[in-house]
Amino acid sequence: MDERLKHLTDVLDAFRTGDLPLGDTLERIDAAYFERAGDVTVDHDRARRTGAPEVIYGEFKTAEQILKTFRAIRTRGDNVLATRVHPDTYAAIEDELDGAEYHPVARALTFRQKALPEVETSVAVVTAGTSDAPVAEEAAVTCEFYGNPVTRIQDAGVAGIHRLLARAGELREARVVIVVAGMEGALPSVVGGLVDKPVIAVPTSIGYGASFGGIAALLGMLNSCASGVAVMNIDNGFGAGFLANRINRL
Amino acid sequence: MDERLKHLTDVLDAFRTGDLPLGDTLERIDAAYFERAGDVTVDHDRARRTGAPEVIYGEFKTAEQILKTFRAIRTRGDNVLATRVHPDTYAAIEDELDGAEYHPVARALTFRQKALPEVETSVAVVTAGTSDAPVAEEAAVTCEFYGNPVTRIQDAGVAGIHRLLARAGELREARVVIVVAGMEGALPSVVGGLVDKPVIAVPTSIGYGASFGGIAALLGMLNSCASGVAVMNIDNGFGAGFLANRINRL
Amino acid sequence: MDERLKHLTDVLDAFRTGDLPLGDTLERIDAAYFERAGDVTVDHDRARRTGAPEVIYGEFKTAEQILKTFRAIRTRGDNVLATRVHPDTYAAIEDELDGAEYHPVARALTFRQKALPEVETSVAVVTAGTSDAPVAEEAAVTCEFYGNPVTRIQDAGVAGIHRLLARAGELREARVVIVVAGMEGALPSVVGGLVDKPVIAVPTSIGYGASFGGIAALLGMLNSCASGVAVMNIDNGFGAGFLANRINRL
Amino acid sequence: MDERLKHLTDVLDAFRTGDLPLGDTLERIDAAYFERAGDVTVDHDRARRTGAPEVIYGEFKTAEQILKTFRAIRTRGDNVLATRVHPDTYAAIEDELDGAEYHPVARALTFRQKALPEVETSVAVVTAGTSDAPVAEEAAVTCEFYGNPVTRIQDAGVAGIHRLLARAGELREARVVIVVAGMEGALPSVVGGLVDKPVIAVPTSIGYGASFGGIAALLGMLNSCASGVAVMNIDNGFGAGFLANRINRL
Amino acid sequence: MDERLKHLTDVLDAFRTGDLPLGDTLERIDAAYFERAGDVTVDHDRARRTGAPEVIYGEFKTAEQILKTFRAIRTRGDNVLATRVHPDTYAAIEDELDGAEYHPVARALTFRQKALPEVETSVAVVTAGTSDAPVAEEAAVTCEFYGNPVTRIQDAGVAGIHRLLARAGELREARVVIVVAGMEGALPSVVGGLVDKPVIAVPTSIGYGASFGGIAALLGMLNSCASGVAVMNIDNGFGAGFLANRINRL
Amino acid sequence: MDERLKHLTDVLDAFRTGDLPLGDTLERIDAAYFERAGDVTVDHDRARRTGAPEVIYGEFKTAEQILKTFRAIRTRGDNVLATRVHPDTYAAIEDELDGAEYHPVARALTFRQKALPEVETSVAVVTAGTSDAPVAEEAAVTCEFYGNPVTRIQDAGVAGIHRLLARAGELREARVVIVVAGMEGALPSVVGGLVDKPVIAVPTSIGYGASFGGIAALLGMLNSCASGVAVMNIDNGFGAGFLANRINRL
Amino acid sequence: MDERLKHLTDVLDAFRTGDLPLGDTLERIDAAYFERAGDVTVDHDRARRTGAPEVIYGEFKTAEQILKTFRAIRTRGDNVLATRVHPDTYAAIEDELDGAEYHPVARALTFRQKALPEVETSVAVVTAGTSDAPVAEEAAVTCEFYGNPVTRIQDAGVAGIHRLLARAGELREARVVIVVAGMEGALPSVVGGLVDKPVIAVPTSIGYGASFGGIAALLGMLNSCASGVAVMNIDNGFGAGFLANRINRL
Amino acid sequence: MDERLKHLTDVLDAFRTGDLPLGDTLERIDAAYFERAGDVTVDHDRARRTGAPEVIYGEFKTAEQILKTFRAIRTRGDNVLATRVHPDTYAAIEDELDGAEYHPVARALTFRQKALPEVETSVAVVTAGTSDAPVAEEAAVTCEFYGNPVTRIQDAGVAGIHRLLARAGELREARVVIVVAGMEGALPSVVGGLVDKPVIAVPTSIGYGASFGGIAALLGMLNSCASGVAVMNIDNGFGAGFLANRINRL
Repeated sequence: MDERLKHLTDVLDAFRTGDLPLGDTLERIDAAYFERAGDVTVDHDRARRTGAPEVIYGEFKTAEQILKTFRAIRTRGDNVLATRVHPDTYAAIEDELDGAEYHPVARALTFRQKALPEVETSVAVVTAGTSDAPVAEEAAVTCEFYGNPVTRIQDAGVAGIHRLLARAGELREARVVIVVAGMEGALPSVVGGLVDKPVIAVPTSIGYGASFGGIAALLGMLNSCASGVAVMNIDNGFGAGFLANRINRL
Repeated sequence: MDERLKHLTDVLDAFRTGDLPLGDTLERIDAAYFERAGDVTVDHDRARRTGAPEVIYGEFKTAEQILKTFRAIRTRGDNVLATRVHPDTYAAIEDELDGAEYHPVARALTFRQKALPEVETSVAVVTAGTSDAPVAEEAAVTCEFYGNPVTRIQDAGVAGIHRLLARAGELREARVVIVVAGMEGALPSVVGGLVDKPVIAVPTSIGYGASFGGIAALLGMLNSCASGVAVMNIDNGFGAGFLANRINRL
Repeated sequence: MDERLKHLTDVLDAFRTGDLPLGDTLERIDAAYFERAGDVTVDHDRARRTGAPEVIYGEFKTAEQILKTFRAIRTRGDNVLATRVHPDTYAAIEDELDGAEYHPVARALTFRQKALPEVETSVAVVTAGTSDAPVAEEAAVTCEFYGNPVTRIQDAGVAGIHRLLARAGELREARVVIVVAGMEGALPSVVGGLVDKPVIAVPTSIGYGASFGGIAALLGMLNSCASGVAVMNIDNGFGAGFLANRINRL
Repeated sequence: MDERLKHLTDVLDAFRTGDLPLGDTLERIDAAYFERAGDVTVDHDRARRTGAPEVIYGEFKTAEQILKTFRAIRTRGDNVLATRVHPDTYAAIEDELDGAEYHPVARALTFRQKALPEVETSVAVVTAGTSDAPVAEEAAVTCEFYGNPVTRIQDAGVAGIHRLLARAGELREARVVIVVAGMEGALPSVVGGLVDKPVIAVPTSIGYGASFGGIAALLGMLNSCASGVAVMNIDNGFGAGFLANRINRL
Repeated sequence: MDERLKHLTDVLDAFRTGDLPLGDTLERIDAAYFERAGDVTVDHDRARRTGAPEVIYGEFKTAEQILKTFRAIRTRGDNVLATRVHPDTYAAIEDELDGAEYHPVARALTFRQKALPEVETSVAVVTAGTSDAPVAEEAAVTCEFYGNPVTRIQDAGVAGIHRLLARAGELREARVVIVVAGMEGALPSVVGGLVDKPVIAVPTSIGYGASFGGIAALLGMLNSCASGVAVMNIDNGFGAGFLANRINRL
Repeated sequence: MDERLKHLTDVLDAFRTGDLPLGDTLERIDAAYFERAGDVTVDHDRARRTGAPEVIYGEFKTAEQILKTFRAIRTRGDNVLATRVHPDTYAAIEDELDGAEYHPVARALTFRQKALPEVETSVAVVTAGTSDAPVAEEAAVTCEFYGNPVTRIQDAGVAGIHRLLARAGELREARVVIVVAGMEGALPSVVGGLVDKPVIAVPTSIGYGASFGGIAALLGMLNSCASGVAVMNIDNGFGAGFLANRINRL
Repeated sequence: MDERLKHLTDVLDAFRTGDLPLGDTLERIDAAYFERAGDVTVDHDRARRTGAPEVIYGEFKTAEQILKTFRAIRTRGDNVLATRVHPDTYAAIEDELDGAEYHPVARALTFRQKALPEVETSVAVVTAGTSDAPVAEEAAVTCEFYGNPVTRIQDAGVAGIHRLLARAGELREARVVIVVAGMEGALPSVVGGLVDKPVIAVPTSIGYGASFGGIAALLGMLNSCASGVAVMNIDNGFGAGFLANRINRL
Repeated sequence: MDERLKHLTDVLDAFRTGDLPLGDTLERIDAAYFERAGDVTVDHDRARRTGAPEVIYGEFKTAEQILKTFRAIRTRGDNVLATRVHPDTYAAIEDELDGAEYHPVARALTFRQKALPEVETSVAVVTAGTSDAPVAEEAAVTCEFYGNPVTRIQDAGVAGIHRLLARAGELREARVVIVVAGMEGALPSVVGGLVDKPVIAVPTSIGYGASFGGIAALLGMLNSCASGVAVMNIDNGFGAGFLANRINRL
């Protein structure tokens, strides 16, 4: 907020000394509150406001659109994270993405040119089954993109609870735990009973019959009998990674 | 099927010898296929067909109706199980139910005058939380009414998984396992991963917010990642006990 | 549990005699409680814990993935059951599956090299309509894979109840009854009123309009007015067969 | 339609002869198309249009309101049917309803002073369980109010299918069959497979857990595998009786 | 029922005279109650029981399967109705269906070789919009297949209520009215207020956004404020036509 | 926006002349953008921003709370509208509300001390059935509170469409039409086809069985086949009246 | 209404003078109330009744059907708006649509040959995100087709609320505001708190996971805490534009 | 984990020296893995495992049960938090709860006898409307119970967005933000766009009509267009406070 005060004080000083006419003064006062103009400005401000560099959500974008946005951000000197980039989409633009890395399981594209202060504490990403991997990897890649070390604990579903218990030590060393599960979505409850760290639960659309595209897992997680579990939207691995980074950086 | 063949052969013999006129013959043939007459006969037959003595579902019945049915069955010399008998209802008829036992947690009433062949193998009834007790007890009392020993494992919810593991031995000794859970309904998945016996899962309506009166638990159980888990209707403790008895008596 | 006690006692003996140093002793004690290491160990243990050989769920797997897992299990000397194997998938790997049998209706693949103790009592698999056959066959093939004789009663929907009654004798001879039905899912109620054996109901996604992909059948089965009916997830033929085997082997 | 033509021709004749001025002519032409005026006229017309005397839906009405409407209709010389009249409501106005009959199970009130041409063919009203009786009786009383003989077949749920088969003869003698069922709502499918008459299915809100206030039964009936079954709203016994009368009078 | 009595009497006579040995007698008695053997027998009986010739539901059948069943029925000398026959399916077998008629809008195939007693009274089929035509035509073709004259009133949606009123006369001449509507499903309520005949409402899956594949129309029809309206499953034109025939033939 | 510019210019002038120190200047600049302080200020601004005087939503408030807020607004010299005031609540505070008027059907309380510029064009409020009256009256009273003449057309449900047509003239004279309907919610479609004015549809929770507390009506209205129909939340009569006033004052 | 009176008076005059025989007179009177015959007549009348020229809903129409209807309307001398015209569909008929304009984002086709009285006041169309553009553009193009100036405010989602605030001035200048948003559908609430004009909210099917094809946005809008917000069906941009025109022309 | 190693090493030492016989050794080894015995032990361990002192969920408990548990925890010397304690329940036991504080809005009871290390950074609790206060206060009281300073920002719903913006400074000073909202649940999206801290969204069951007891708000929050928002179950203020404490203490 200080920044605004400083800006306003400067503007008022220039106004009082006559360096700034009334019209310009009013305009600059406005600029302290509202963001004007084109999209770039807006994004600039969002980064300041919420601390997050821009992300490209690739799901509904053409290869061309992704490429164009990618280049624009790269040119600004920022890092790039593009999620939901289908392998075919990537294949189509692969040649023009020098230095970018494609993560096939996560279907994510990353490019880093600007160093981020790395975090020392880690985020654990736990999955119930192998089918949950794409969502879990999206979360993990997002965490790593923002500079967080990630511990992956895979295929630790509740029907073989010993697999999870065997890694309880690693789990407890993480500062934030992301749990990704489809079907009955029971894993976050078990994990939530084992650790004393924030647990971010991500339901996946993996399942059959009455899983209803992830509703069963979503409800299971919302109703978790373990305290300290918060829930993301179905398949929202990026959101979980984004939030884990925020928490881990506190 | 033999019984019917024998009956038909006898009828045909009597017909051929002229002992049975045509009209009576046709009627008796019919009787070999369809059950006629009043309700009592029907019930008689149901017992023969499905092996289960009659049960009084008390939920929507008045104290008077329960008492009347109770007496009718007792007079026939049968055992009686009445479920969903509210404490107030019981209080109103308590004095006239000599020898009947009321189970306040299960809200069930039992009366045994006829010996049932006891089963030696036991049924385990596991609950996730104390609020699930009424449904679990209804299941347990039903099992016991039909002559099955019951092992109760209470308050073994997945958020404190060690409590369940500590009793894995007892669990594995049972021949059938009933798991009763509300909220996210995750317990049957964990139990199903620990035992090699049939698991009957009963969702309860216990929960808050998005548990939607047991839907979350029901979906969780239907989508269990553990094989060998079958699901009953929400709060249907009686049904679970009834089925457990059938399986345990095989 | 004895096995663990024995293992621990042996470890302790070796420790006391000095044959086993402290570090190894602690490690081996751990091993009595938690399963460590790679997936193979885990699966091994699951078989021990729950009595079920490994199954390949083919739905989301490529032909190559199925083939690879198939060979791995075969090499171990185990039997193989792969479900949800699309005919095209099978066609692509058919040549390399010597000795495996493909069940086109069930879309299942089986391979047996290890004798299982056969069960003498049978499982009945009843279907309401011909469209329910894939799910019913998945259940039947699963039962047979685990060594259970299967009686198939097809197309016995409740709108032509005489077809079912005509086979009531066969139905009653089975030790477990699996009922597979879509649309209104009424068949388990009728079957449940005819037999005194456990009934496993499987709703199918067959239906039109307000069947909502099997929800109507699922709700119908959960609300069955017949006692002793338990329900599986929509289209979960494998789960029903798996549970039927568990019950039939008791 | 003839009536309108006649009216218009008369009006035009009177207009041509100058007996009717332009303004009145236009007004009377309008009257041939649109119904004007107060509520009584409207109701009058509805009876002509749809053949049904007026019915009082008592659910949300006070005793006083029911009494007032009752008297108004009686004064007009018409018969009265009031549905959903709570016993307490009835008790409050009982003394002032000379000649009216109260049907406690159906919670309906009837008063007949005008002879209706009786129908000779009957309507069968079949119920799955005793809890469905209020809805079934509402249907039956409605049928009888409109002059249809009713055959009641009670407690013929599909879990004891022999009870229904035993009365198949009576069922087939009816010209229209109303089937009332809660829980899984399977009965109409079975009945629809036994008769060649129109079947009107009424789901009831009777049930527990996942019956969701009649949704399970409603979906079961909509998805009936038997052809020729049409469905009413949940608990709409009056609607079924009303429709049955329309069909039976054809 | 007489037919069965006659059959049984004949069998008994032959048994008494010694013409029929005991084994055959028992078998023939059985045959009077239960349908044995192959599908053809079954269908035979269904026709007797429910009055309806066999229908081929083409939705999930291959061209080959439809052709095969078609020929089987034709060979028996019966009429054939096949519904949900996709134009491509028809094109593939067109050459081998001599004398069969394809109805492209209804996607139905009919073949008549046996005269049905025609009905004189007609069925009206009303549609709300042109998109509802396939379902409405399926209903109309079904009615005509069973020998009922059909009056088609198209595109009479409630947003242009005058179009419906203009044809109220025709509507009132029909003995049964089928109303087919998607979107808000309001048309049956309006029609139900205009006629005194049974109204069969068919919701269609036509609609956008919150129509949810016909749920909005289905709920609208179930909650119709007009009495005497019964509802079919979404898009179930055949069912409506089938029921209309039953009612019209009373 | 001018007001803000003027305020800012004044502040800047005072700052330049030294009348206003920097701190106060910054504070007053802030005040031009953000509303500070207590609730009263906030409301003040809302009225300026959205043109609506304050309304008391009485549903969850005690009689005391309503009275207190009522007095506070009255003291400020403003008019008061309180909705969802239960008759018992009103009875409890009636004596202290001099000059306020209670509308029992709408369950609304109004008090006017400040003249509003009346609008000459009217709003029509149409209801399908008498049970919809509370919601319709809430809409009507809201319209009148804001100064709009209201034409009430009651009990014009689609099952008696002539009643609506008979008043089509009045309907067309209104500038905005509010249509209130429960059950199938079909009335807005019919009205939308008769007028060329904006139609605001309000579903009510009136209905039975599958009306699901207004969902059926809500879906019906959202899927209206008539263009120009917008929908409010279930039972939201106030919202409809509020919006109608906004439109009517344009 | 005058038009009808005039028509009737003319007819009556001709009848009185004998110029028009009775039969023709009756027919012409009918024509004043009911629309007969072909579709063209019907549309003619609808335009008179509801003030809206004909619109082609292209979603389920073939290129050929669209072209045919397009030509028919053009020949009549009317303007044409076709919505939901897929680019491929347009490409197929592009050459034959002289003078028509295709709006690729809105997927709409417009043709104007008849001058409409333009409106001076504008409609604002606000979108939450770029993915909502197709629906928003459909609304905007519809508004423009009917002669309304449109102010587009894009990508003003609530997570970057300053973008919206920065354009609050423009927003307040519009006479009607259409707000188009997917995902959580929160934008109309914010807009509704900023303006004192009617707000038409359009939920879009844009979203992931638990957005359920627009249900989340729809519910969000129906429950808006801002007064004066009415809701359209999911993705119904045309409907919003149509209603905005109606309101803006008042 | 070290603690366990130490415990095991001690046990083994005692065993080797013969101080501990085999039976006791095995028992103590077990105790290192599984928690045995009574409830108190279990809770003890849960605190160690997950860092949270015990909480009494009062919703379904009697005054007596709450009092008993309260005393048991107090006797152990621990702090007590009881949620969902109805005012009447509190009134009944008030006299026996020396030193406990009742928070009437939050309906929570707290008792602190043991000092917790206070946290310096604060948690902001933002509410959309006054009706959301009970849930928000439950969250706030929970935060304070665990030693976190709380900043309350009330009644900052999105329809008056300036109220929120005016307090953006305070909001940004918090380390964790809890946002509590009913109705459309839009507030977390706006807050998530203003801060760069973790946002915990709590939907409340406050709302009318289509809010469906909090489902609308829940879906709105899950679909938030702002990144970094995680969601709790409906009305779960305690869960949000518990998680906020975990995050704030990192």
